[in-house]
Amino acid sequence: MTNLTLALDAMGGDYGPRITVPAALQALRLYSFLNFYLVGNKTDIEKYLSQVESDVLRRIEIIHTTEVVTMSDRPAHALRNRKQSSMRLAIELVRDGKAQACLSAGNTGALMAMSKVLLKTLPGIDRPALVSCLPAVNKTPVYLLDLGANVSCCSETLFQFAVMGSVLCEAVDKNCSPKVALLNVGIEEIKGNDQVQQAGQLLQQSPQINYTGFIEGNDLFSGCVDVIVCDGFVGNITLKTSEGIARLLVHQLEKGLTKGFFVRLMAKMIAPRINSVLNQMNPDHYNGASLIGLRGIVVKSHGSADESAYLQAISLAVTEAQRRLPQMIEERLESILLDINN
Amino acid sequence: MTNLTLALDAMGGDYGPRITVPAALQALRLYSFLNFYLVGNKTDIEKYLSQVESDVLRRIEIIHTTEVVTMSDRPAHALRNRKQSSMRLAIELVRDGKAQACLSAGNTGALMAMSKVLLKTLPGIDRPALVSCLPAVNKTPVYLLDLGANVSCCSETLFQFAVMGSVLCEAVDKNCSPKVALLNVGIEEIKGNDQVQQAGQLLQQSPQINYTGFIEGNDLFSGCVDVIVCDGFVGNITLKTSEGIARLLVHQLEKGLTKGFFVRLMAKMIAPRINSVLNQMNPDHYNGASLIGLRGIVVKSHGSADESAYLQAISLAVTEAQRRLPQMIEERLESILLDINN
Repeated sequence: MTNLTLALDAMGGDYGPRITVPAALQALRLYSFLNFYLVGNKTDIEKYLSQVESDVLRRIEIIHTTEVVTMSDRPAHALRNRKQSSMRLAIELVRDGKAQACLSAGNTGALMAMSKVLLKTLPGIDRPALVSCLPAVNKTPVYLLDLGANVSCCSETLFQFAVMGSVLCEAVDKNCSPKVALLNVGIEEIKGNDQVQQAGQLLQQSPQINYTGFIEGNDLFSGCVDVIVCDGFVGNITLKTSEGIARLLVHQLEKGLTKGFFVRLMAKMIAPRINSVLNQMNPDHYNGASLIGLRGIVVKSHGSADESAYLQAISLAVTEAQRRLPQMIEERLESILLDINN
Repeated sequence: MTNLTLALDAMGGDYGPRITVPAALQALRLYSFLNFYLVGNKTDIEKYLSQVESDVLRRIEIIHTTEVVTMSDRPAHALRNRKQSSMRLAIELVRDGKAQACLSAGNTGALMAMSKVLLKTLPGIDRPALVSCLPAVNKTPVYLLDLGANVSCCSETLFQFAVMGSVLCEAVDKNCSPKVALLNVGIEEIKGNDQVQQAGQLLQQSPQINYTGFIEGNDLFSGCVDVIVCDGFVGNITLKTSEGIARLLVHQLEKGLTKGFFVRLMAKMIAPRINSVLNQMNPDHYNGASLIGLRGIVVKSHGSADESAYLQAISLAVTEAQRRLPQMIEERLESILLDINN
């Protein structure tokens, strides 16, 4: 296996090095070909490196900086004023070819702005997209994009997202012909706004994409497709709505299962099983959103990710780097556009 | 109590008169001041009227027609070609002042198109909106609009929806100062697309609306506001996503609770309680969507509504008619617009 180096914004996220460093150590033990740049405050990072075996330790290099991007920094502000931040330095390591991917659990808007400016988008891609996985009935997770990087999108952008999502699914899940759908208010061709309708027409003209048509919200989790495309406004609200309804259900179940001694007793006995099911609905268990369409790999972890969720994000970055995702997207897009133009 | 007359598209919905007529009979027994026009095939309707007590029977008038709007009729087609349909005749009864509200479980697009053309929108309202209730943690349901009547909306339209939603909540729930929020990708003022941002500014200038700012998808069900406004594209997908995730959870719970003899036994014992909780998430239990902004009351029932869900839709129509919702919206909008212009 070729050696891989990841640059980690060790300070990002709600817990900073307390989560990011132990997760990186786990990854180093898991993948013998892996190396890390841990970017952030050296003292804070080293706290979690005592008693670590030398074989693991020598695959870590700390890039010391005390500046961080805060969660309240506006993207433009972070871009102008956080030039020595752990987030920016991590992205620069990718730009400069020193790392094959970077990872942050910090401010999403700042991460997107910095990544776009420092790494640039791929030829043929106007805007990067944020993509993540949803749980689905009886199948591998479903990719949903865009999750909020672009609050309004033209049909061309939606088309590019569909291509990128399809290539991502091929690369990560080794699915050779992922089913791609556009999220819409109905499945009939006449349904939806202009952007979605025109994007549908573009996709119909692309024999290389396994485009299955429109999909409605109630089929998001049914597992009938592999990639679902929408603009970032809809995607963000859809993802957060799913979180909200899962939380409501937990609340209602807890309430419903505390009435009456017998029910309470039974509920207590099977509580671990119910919790394990509900945990599968927790987005942190499908952690790691990728910012795709850039000339480099950027993975975003949930800010409140725990160690195992953060490790999942690292694994996603590893897979994308191994498959050379940006190059795959670039080649595929080129070939698809040629197909359409001929 | 003043007498009220509702016009019912008895043929609409997946089950037609088999559900609509018994639900109407229940409503007549519940509300002594209520009368019905049952519009549809006389023979089909009368099947469900045998052995009905005369006191109830004399408050029913059947308007016979054999034409129906089918679920596959496009709105424009239904408008041009279904002039004797049960749906259209029911709306015409409202237009002609013979009924104070109409109700259909049929084709939503056709119902919207016919209602808009036959009843017209209120002065100051550009487009009607479809509004319904979501379940929420620890409180009365939350109104969400628009649910799909308008796939793209300008800021003015979103503003009008907010006013209509607020008045609806006042009228139906007797909430004297409903909290109104705009659905967005973040709660900060800089977040979102132009339409949402400008609608937010209009609402901030309206002291008569208790506008609380932006809300994210994960707070849809938290009960922190009473009315949530978005365009029909987002609203439709949000509502259907909620349906989808509830279905996924049921599936996962069923799967999770069938492994192991002991767990299976316990699960069986508390199954009724779990089911009752999950049923609360079923949109049919919050049945009845209103088409508001028109010069008449139009309530849409879910196509697959059962008798009790259809009865809820009738009750909603009764409440809206008693409170004279269209007049309330008209007066309130006029006063709010005066406030803004001064």
